Amino acid sequence: MRLKLHVLKVYTGRPVIFLHESSAKKIGIRTGDRVTIKKNGNSLVAIVDLVRDIIKKNEAALSEELNLALKGHNKGYIEIFPSEIAESSSILHDQFECNQYSQKDLEKIMGDIVNNLLTEAEIAYFISGMVHCKSSIKEIIYLINAMVKTGSRISWPYKIIADKHSIGGIAGNRTTPIVVSICASAGVIMPKTSSRAITSAAGTADTVESIAPVSLSVSQLKKVVNKTGACLVWGGSLGLAPADDKLIRVEKLLRVDPESQLLASILAKKVSVGSTHVLIDIPYGEGAKVSKVQGEKLGQLFILLGKKLNLKIKVVLTDGKEPIGHGVGPILEIKDVIKVLKQDNSPKDLENKSLFLAGNILELVGKVKKGYGIIKAREILYSGQAYKKFCEIVHAQGGDPKTWLPEAKFNHTIISKYNGIIKKIDNKDINYLARITGCPVDKTAGVYLYKHIGEYIQKGEKIVTLFSESNQKLKEAVKFFKKNKSIVIK
Amino acid sequence: MRLKLHVLKVYTGRPVIFLHESSAKKIGIRTGDRVTIKKNGNSLVAIVDLVRDIIKKNEAALSEELNLALKGHNKGYIEIFPSEIAESSSILHDQFECNQYSQKDLEKIMGDIVNNLLTEAEIAYFISGMVHCKSSIKEIIYLINAMVKTGSRISWPYKIIADKHSIGGIAGNRTTPIVVSICASAGVIMPKTSSRAITSAAGTADTVESIAPVSLSVSQLKKVVNKTGACLVWGGSLGLAPADDKLIRVEKLLRVDPESQLLASILAKKVSVGSTHVLIDIPYGEGAKVSKVQGEKLGQLFILLGKKLNLKIKVVLTDGKEPIGHGVGPILEIKDVIKVLKQDNSPKDLENKSLFLAGNILELVGKVKKGYGIIKAREILYSGQAYKKFCEIVHAQGGDPKTWLPEAKFNHTIISKYNGIIKKIDNKDINYLARITGCPVDKTAGVYLYKHIGEYIQKGEKIVTLFSESNQKLKEAVKFFKKNKSIVIK
Repeated sequence: MRLKLHVLKVYTGRPVIFLHESSAKKIGIRTGDRVTIKKNGNSLVAIVDLVRDIIKKNEAALSEELNLALKGHNKGYIEIFPSEIAESSSILHDQFECNQYSQKDLEKIMGDIVNNLLTEAEIAYFISGMVHCKSSIKEIIYLINAMVKTGSRISWPYKIIADKHSIGGIAGNRTTPIVVSICASAGVIMPKTSSRAITSAAGTADTVESIAPVSLSVSQLKKVVNKTGACLVWGGSLGLAPADDKLIRVEKLLRVDPESQLLASILAKKVSVGSTHVLIDIPYGEGAKVSKVQGEKLGQLFILLGKKLNLKIKVVLTDGKEPIGHGVGPILEIKDVIKVLKQDNSPKDLENKSLFLAGNILELVGKVKKGYGIIKAREILYSGQAYKKFCEIVHAQGGDPKTWLPEAKFNHTIISKYNGIIKKIDNKDINYLARITGCPVDKTAGVYLYKHIGEYIQKGEKIVTLFSESNQKLKEAVKFFKKNKSIVIK
Repeated sequence: MRLKLHVLKVYTGRPVIFLHESSAKKIGIRTGDRVTIKKNGNSLVAIVDLVRDIIKKNEAALSEELNLALKGHNKGYIEIFPSEIAESSSILHDQFECNQYSQKDLEKIMGDIVNNLLTEAEIAYFISGMVHCKSSIKEIIYLINAMVKTGSRISWPYKIIADKHSIGGIAGNRTTPIVVSICASAGVIMPKTSSRAITSAAGTADTVESIAPVSLSVSQLKKVVNKTGACLVWGGSLGLAPADDKLIRVEKLLRVDPESQLLASILAKKVSVGSTHVLIDIPYGEGAKVSKVQGEKLGQLFILLGKKLNLKIKVVLTDGKEPIGHGVGPILEIKDVIKVLKQDNSPKDLENKSLFLAGNILELVGKVKKGYGIIKAREILYSGQAYKKFCEIVHAQGGDPKTWLPEAKFNHTIISKYNGIIKKIDNKDINYLARITGCPVDKTAGVYLYKHIGEYIQKGEKIVTLFSESNQKLKEAVKFFKKNKSIVIK
């Protein structure tokens, strides 16, 4: 059926087409059905909402986003057809009592997820299966292969491609720019892609973005890496394992994080970007995502999967009981990073963790003998080479390491009312606090921590400063802090 | 936040509120978040779609349906608040590796489903768990209790309340009006509620609706039953186990039908309507929903659950290999029903099955001795009492048994090209064929079958007549019939 295109400024979080009731009736389509939309040789699948106003009878309305995906102008006509039921939809509903999926099944499902052929409800249905049914190693490998196969894959003329990944959860844990700069200085190739914050205050991509563009294309990324040996970009614009991004979106809605999919998600991205050697950082402890025992178990799974995927994986378990560095929030964190790189009032906990991780990578790729990694890393950092490399990378991405980093319009400092020892700094609370102040959207927003666990604090000394672009948000953050005892002094 | 209400003629299949981007930003809400909407002391939860056109900055748009649910006028203001995360949402995401739910968990989940607090994706997530993890009898009982508790429950001053249920799947299987009329004639109280067609050509409610109103309130239903001893109404307007209706809607989207939920769905409705004695009809065989072995297993589960619920359940397995009666479609089926009741050219297969079921109910409630049920049922039918009772019920519901039943505008008869025996009549195909002709929306549409399996047919004799209000639909139906060999003659 041919209908006049009407583009709406609507954000529905799922691909929706608004059809007039009368045209839907003609082709036997109901609310919630899927239709294939064709325009200029491009096509995609959307879910139908029926309307009797907003549009005329001979029109169909799409969101700007969907129209963009069709690569269409805002005018003209579209063709719509009732969608056949997605092949993977049948695979899903034929699956019961925790049967395992085959390689072919998972390729179909991931392919249909990428092409919008499965609804949010069907994706949730798939995820629920992953949570309730223990995946075998074989099934996770199938899932990884399927995610890689249904996205772009970058190939390199280099033999060794290094990478790192932290499973996250620790506020202010911004080691990546430091580790990449150190390793690249030593000649290690590191095409590092990072995520933006999903539930945390800032992702590495949000942080680096305050001084350099991070939304690069694959060819731009290759240019930067070929020039400097590394990059610090956002993974979301590269089309690496795109099924994973869509799964994560639904998992976020459901607030679940199945282990098999966590493993597949990380490793599919690494395989897609062409990595050969990967260091996995698993912070553990109270307030971290995992306990020590869980972390060890997870680490073993990573190594097992790495062997099957021909990836050399090293896992390190690190102390995750408190935030790292002083700043939590995009600009506050990049300031900490630069302090370490320039060795100018460097936050020692962030420096030490970065040296530890960089040292491990240098050993993993064979740049130094076992036991000499940290020494080499420290040498590179202290000599100023790492900072120089960092500036090179930022320049190559089109940024400027000397970008002026503004301070938020409003701030509020909280003072200790007692003498005592810092007993606890709750990671989740600090992240949430930073979100209240406006992170990650407001780059200047966030939390500055003056002390860490075990340090002595005197009555009248500063505990934290909260930064925000909105006085209202600042007040809410102060209220949250006071109510939740996110930092315990005894 | 207070916003001006704007009502849209939109059908989204899920509760959606359109908020202007600028107001959403002010209270920190994003696409896909849930908000609580309050108006005149009523409140409900909806999912946010963001817009930059359609509405003004100080407005929020609701669908007519949602506005109706708020019992509001089309004008005035609404208050919106970011929704707390539903308690049951946490129950869902704390559940993994096929743990069983507790009574309390399921009550929370069913309650939140009824109150729109769970999204479609979360409901799909719950259903997937039911499909992948085998429910214990205990868990199914918990589910039934939870469904009953979160809806209305009808109580009666009578000691015995009889009911019947067929698990469905058989085209034309319209025994209910006949069975209810016979049993009520014998003094059995039968407040029968039925469903509308979901995937079939017609439900009992659609069929009866062609001569009587079926959307009664609980108090109207009670009046009809107190007067006539029975009723033939639609279950959907009574608020009995409403969580079940919402689960079924999502299951339909996913095209799954988990056994535990099938059992819970049927029995929760029976408990809610106040039944004490229930006959379950399980048609089995090729083209039916279950095989004989599956049917027997299902029957045992029904009886086991009945014992725990204090329901007296009898299960009968019936031959489900072909359609029953001549007509498939609302009016064609009510014509068959009246032919049986008036003993005027009665389709014998429909008559015999109805007598068998009615006889079983008479025995189950103790109206006759074991072995005498069918005899008594036949006596009542042949004496004309059943037809008289049927007319009473139709009158009491506000209908007229003498309603003129029109024929569809277009019809097409298919003639046999060979001499032979009818070897197969595919239930699913016949149902689908009737849907193509316009069932259940067009009450006159459908399929009329002249012969049944095993009957001899001569070249030139009629096989079926297809009825439709649209010549286009009729042509499609003929095409489908010819292509699919839905009836095999050999």
